[in-house]
Amino acid sequence: MTPAGTLFGIGLGPGAADLLTLRAARLIGAARVIAYPALAGGESFARSIAAGLIPPTAQEIVIDLPMTTDRAPAQAAYDRGAATMAAALDSGEDVLVLCEGDPLFYGSFMYLLARLRDRYRVEIVPGVTSVSACSAVAARPLAARNETVTILPGPLPDADLARHLRAADAVVVMKVGRHLPRAIYVERATLGSERILPLSDAPAEAPYFSMILIAKGADPWL
Amino acid sequence: MTPAGTLFGIGLGPGAADLLTLRAARLIGAARVIAYPALAGGESFARSIAAGLIPPTAQEIVIDLPMTTDRAPAQAAYDRGAATMAAALDSGEDVLVLCEGDPLFYGSFMYLLARLRDRYRVEIVPGVTSVSACSAVAARPLAARNETVTILPGPLPDADLARHLRAADAVVVMKVGRHLPRAIYVERATLGSERILPLSDAPAEAPYFSMILIAKGADPWL
Repeated sequence: MTPAGTLFGIGLGPGAADLLTLRAARLIGAARVIAYPALAGGESFARSIAAGLIPPTAQEIVIDLPMTTDRAPAQAAYDRGAATMAAALDSGEDVLVLCEGDPLFYGSFMYLLARLRDRYRVEIVPGVTSVSACSAVAARPLAARNETVTILPGPLPDADLARHLRAADAVVVMKVGRHLPRAIYVERATLGSERILPLSDAPAEAPYFSMILIAKGADPWL
Repeated sequence: MTPAGTLFGIGLGPGAADLLTLRAARLIGAARVIAYPALAGGESFARSIAAGLIPPTAQEIVIDLPMTTDRAPAQAAYDRGAATMAAALDSGEDVLVLCEGDPLFYGSFMYLLARLRDRYRVEIVPGVTSVSACSAVAARPLAARNETVTILPGPLPDADLARHLRAADAVVVMKVGRHLPRAIYVERATLGSERILPLSDAPAEAPYFSMILIAKGADPWL
């Protein structure tokens, strides 16, 4: 009997093709089966980051996610994707899941991992997060010494955001949908369309790939 | 007059040589001047990660940090390092600072940045953090959906740790020196000497490159 393949979660970094790791690039360049999410039949952002490396012969499993906040249709899409991936793994093929940023940091890879981890060998390739990318393009240190960093999803209720902000040193607000004082707004870090602005100049409608950085102060530096 | 060079902060990732980004590898492979910290005359961990890529002809600026928690001697070392780097930058050379993990995430690069950013062009290459590396080797998602992530330096006073832990969803404790319940202990993630243990089995003396991951629960997954 053929031994089953390995499930790989491959972090692709924040968007620029050369912010993939050497390990991710090597694995993708040799891939026979890849899988990635796409939203409602649209182009997959994950696939677009790695596009230059994907062998033309690779089998591609698209996990087509519906455009809804209702969880049942997404669960059904992950169920179907995991079943297709399981068939490939059972036939002895490794399956590489392409993941924006880091696979285990607010990534959808965990939903596939939850469905497959008990049956298959799993290997994760960590990636550069959008948090690091935003700090980098703004050239602003996020935290030093014994400062804490709190990462807050923007969709949290205002009261929760306020409570966390009171307790925090450095703060990252991801998936920006709210305005916060004295902060830098970064949109599409490392992509060609990247923008860095004072938060007061941020657009009224922020895209999903945007972030606010709030450093603790002007001189936490030695 | 020769235009001044650019100061690069190059994230090297958590330790494995193939977790450098393609961009970092390309820049290091073409470097003419590199700089990196070393502790009290010892080997530089940052340099060891990139060792296979550094051209033998590159000039190397070693920032020799004293083994003390007193800040004045470290400040003097960064002052000296920045002066040497400034001389290279003024002569038109780019200077690449090699940084473990991500340059702006608890990194010493910020001390050089603070000394040089007003005079030179700066470019930061973000890297994979040890937080992502620890999640990856443990194959444990750090956060999903609207969960928050709180990153706590272990040397914080107990009362501060306790206060943050009460407010937090997912928690990362870096620079582990304390014990915390129900958590995974990860030592030297992605290096050959990597160890992953239940926290109860963690060694009494944890090395500096160690971390505790505390995920929110068993099933925050879809």
